[in-house]
Amino acid sequence: MTEIDPETPAQAAEEKPELREGEYELDRTLVTGVLEAVDGANAVALDGLLEPLHPADIADLLEQISGPERRAFLSLWSTGLDGEVLSELEDGLREEVIEFLPAHVLQGAVRELESDDVVDLVEDLQQEQQELILGALNTVDRAVVEDALSYPEFSAGRLMQREMVVVPEDWTVGQAIDFMRASETLPEQFYHVILVDPAYHPVGYVTLGRILGAPRSSHLRQMGEDSFRTIPVTQAEADVAYAFNQYHLISAPVVDEDERLIGVITIDDAMAVLDEEAEEDILRLAGVGSDESVSDRTMETVRQRFPWLAVNLVTAILASLVISQFEEILAQIVALAVLMPIVASMGGNAGTQSLTVAVRAIATRDLTGANLLRVVRREAVAGLVNGLIFAVVMGVIGVLWFGTPALGGVIAVAMVINMVVAALAGILIPIALDKIGVDPALASGAFVTTVTDVVGFFAFLGLAAAVLI
Amino acid sequence: MTEIDPETPAQAAEEKPELREGEYELDRTLVTGVLEAVDGANAVALDGLLEPLHPADIADLLEQISGPERRAFLSLWSTGLDGEVLSELEDGLREEVIEFLPAHVLQGAVRELESDDVVDLVEDLQQEQQELILGALNTVDRAVVEDALSYPEFSAGRLMQREMVVVPEDWTVGQAIDFMRASETLPEQFYHVILVDPAYHPVGYVTLGRILGAPRSSHLRQMGEDSFRTIPVTQAEADVAYAFNQYHLISAPVVDEDERLIGVITIDDAMAVLDEEAEEDILRLAGVGSDESVSDRTMETVRQRFPWLAVNLVTAILASLVISQFEEILAQIVALAVLMPIVASMGGNAGTQSLTVAVRAIATRDLTGANLLRVVRREAVAGLVNGLIFAVVMGVIGVLWFGTPALGGVIAVAMVINMVVAALAGILIPIALDKIGVDPALASGAFVTTVTDVVGFFAFLGLAAAVLI
Repeated sequence: MTEIDPETPAQAAEEKPELREGEYELDRTLVTGVLEAVDGANAVALDGLLEPLHPADIADLLEQISGPERRAFLSLWSTGLDGEVLSELEDGLREEVIEFLPAHVLQGAVRELESDDVVDLVEDLQQEQQELILGALNTVDRAVVEDALSYPEFSAGRLMQREMVVVPEDWTVGQAIDFMRASETLPEQFYHVILVDPAYHPVGYVTLGRILGAPRSSHLRQMGEDSFRTIPVTQAEADVAYAFNQYHLISAPVVDEDERLIGVITIDDAMAVLDEEAEEDILRLAGVGSDESVSDRTMETVRQRFPWLAVNLVTAILASLVISQFEEILAQIVALAVLMPIVASMGGNAGTQSLTVAVRAIATRDLTGANLLRVVRREAVAGLVNGLIFAVVMGVIGVLWFGTPALGGVIAVAMVINMVVAALAGILIPIALDKIGVDPALASGAFVTTVTDVVGFFAFLGLAAAVLI
Repeated sequence: MTEIDPETPAQAAEEKPELREGEYELDRTLVTGVLEAVDGANAVALDGLLEPLHPADIADLLEQISGPERRAFLSLWSTGLDGEVLSELEDGLREEVIEFLPAHVLQGAVRELESDDVVDLVEDLQQEQQELILGALNTVDRAVVEDALSYPEFSAGRLMQREMVVVPEDWTVGQAIDFMRASETLPEQFYHVILVDPAYHPVGYVTLGRILGAPRSSHLRQMGEDSFRTIPVTQAEADVAYAFNQYHLISAPVVDEDERLIGVITIDDAMAVLDEEAEEDILRLAGVGSDESVSDRTMETVRQRFPWLAVNLVTAILASLVISQFEEILAQIVALAVLMPIVASMGGNAGTQSLTVAVRAIATRDLTGANLLRVVRREAVAGLVNGLIFAVVMGVIGVLWFGTPALGGVIAVAMVINMVVAALAGILIPIALDKIGVDPALASGAFVTTVTDVVGFFAFLGLAAAVLI
């Protein structure tokens, strides 16, 4: 990479400031201070330490200390937990904290929250805890939250806020400004004025920046943004997050099945969803329950990891069954036992590479009918080329190590076969799972590993049995 | 999960609308239509099909068709490529397209872009292509872009835009509105008015929504947002993205080393970075070059996958060397060859689970000095518990399969050892790599697999040699 720079490269390297990395971690001394204050039951010191912190950082702190420390902390914290800290906590811990808090503290905390945050808070709770929280809300807020809960989980309806600024499409900038100035409760957060027709269908939006820069007589209709697009209330939140990132949206009106405006989603919520979706894919690809976190208790960790290990045990036993078919030749040529894991391991890794690229490409809509065949062909050829390279390397190593040219040939051929099969399995299995509605991140790994283990051992030992005896 | 619902559960299930999933994929018939228009050299039809598309979708389309199709497409597209499509293209393809475009089309496209998009466009190009693009800009724009390039790659300085609205901290709402209305060029995108002191240090910001809702006489200083925080210009963009997501920022002022305001970063750019960082982690964990994409050519794919396969070959050979130490007993008890991959495979999977959780927790600042010891202990215990469960299962299978109780005992003990070691390696290796400044997503896999393979085979075969002979 070369860059334009008036100085010579040497000077530039000298003068270019260094990248600062790894900020925003909780300060170790702060955590120690907090724990000391809790330990000494010093409520004043605790409040003083927490006062300057963002609720998200207090939530992180609660996540990073131990269970007993957390309970002592919550008992001592005199100002009580505010609603924002509660909504920043991760799901597992939130339930623990809610159970621990006295009802009046909990209800006070909830009353401060925006409706979309209350929805996020209650949707995963047990009925009893839900009732407790909903009971703290006034009738209007409660109705709003219950309405949101009537939409499917993970839908735009759960993500949207009701607070928005809506004006008739034929208004001018001056009318909109007067309306906002006269309004008693503008939303905490809004970036657009949404234009609707008489049937309350959203027909466009105007950014606040353009309204502030335009003469009062300008017609809003003529100032609408090109980026305008509405989101159906039942749309999956993962799709919503994709749309925000793809189309650089800042906010987007949500409509019901009659295309009528019922809410708005803002980019900060979409960003949080995008982050969660990526997290989920990463953890699922590794066979970890997608809501596992470092603050889980040990038994929760055991439970989250168990299923994938159980699946893996089955595939490993399948592979062993393949090996057991060749006990006779293994007993004769022990070098086969030494070399056979290499073939399976290289196939497993090549398969994981292909499937990870495929899973991501499906998630980002980059793998479609338009390029499917070409991508499959590319995977096969790439598998073949890398297979040939490593076959030659491994063939030579096999010959040098065991002095048997035929053994080198067998491992080379088995390697090529397994790496091509791995590449194909890595791309075709996620696509097939996606087609039948199974999350490819969740299930592809088990299938691909089974294929590469079985094919790897079978090709290597089968060829050996055919050639070496 | 239970939800509050006025109807009975049966009714609710009936009435709750269904989740819509998997929108926003490029329409297959559209792609076919475009390719037909290109094939028939029908420029009018092509323009008609592309006109309603968002530049990001046109970029996706270019990514999904083949190389020759792409060149035919670009030759035919009469309106020429606009700058936004260019900035939406992924890096690898962008270079290809830029090389193909006539200089005047390229320069025309670049002139339409905002300065931060130009920076994003030129930073990865060869010097010659950079000069061509910078040459298209006017003196002011060029100076802005060159200044951005003087900051380190992946820093806030590369991400920020210079266009912003800045006013003295002692102004009123009325003064700010008059200033904006009189301004000839407001930024395309802005969400806050930034307040500065006389030395141009940012001291707060006010959202446009609050300005629109407040009386003209209100003092801006009293309307500042709590979320206000500045970002050092040399801060890594990954940290910036984390801060936006953690603190729910919409925009954040960027300051130089003297704390003076020099630009602003908006959430849409932070969201794109967050997405890229997650993508990078996913691909690196799978041993794929972090800028691999489905539109790469085959040889690029081979090149991206080769290094990790080469590393894996070395670790696999190491494991084979361990196995070869036990050739004697393998020749005597062939059941060992059948069962040994199970021990290595279970360890490998348990290690991958731990390391993936650790890598994510490091990336999200959830694993710190405050909880490190507790997390390590939890991993070890979880590994032990799952190890014991699968040891019993596998021990029983071993006995039933081969009729040798001692063999069942050997595999059970080896399994427990390897799964505890795997859990510890999975957490300690990423932490150690992070401490010495190596990206744990990139390198942990190789180390952890080596450990689990070597320990797995050594424990199993070593125990067998000690017990079974």
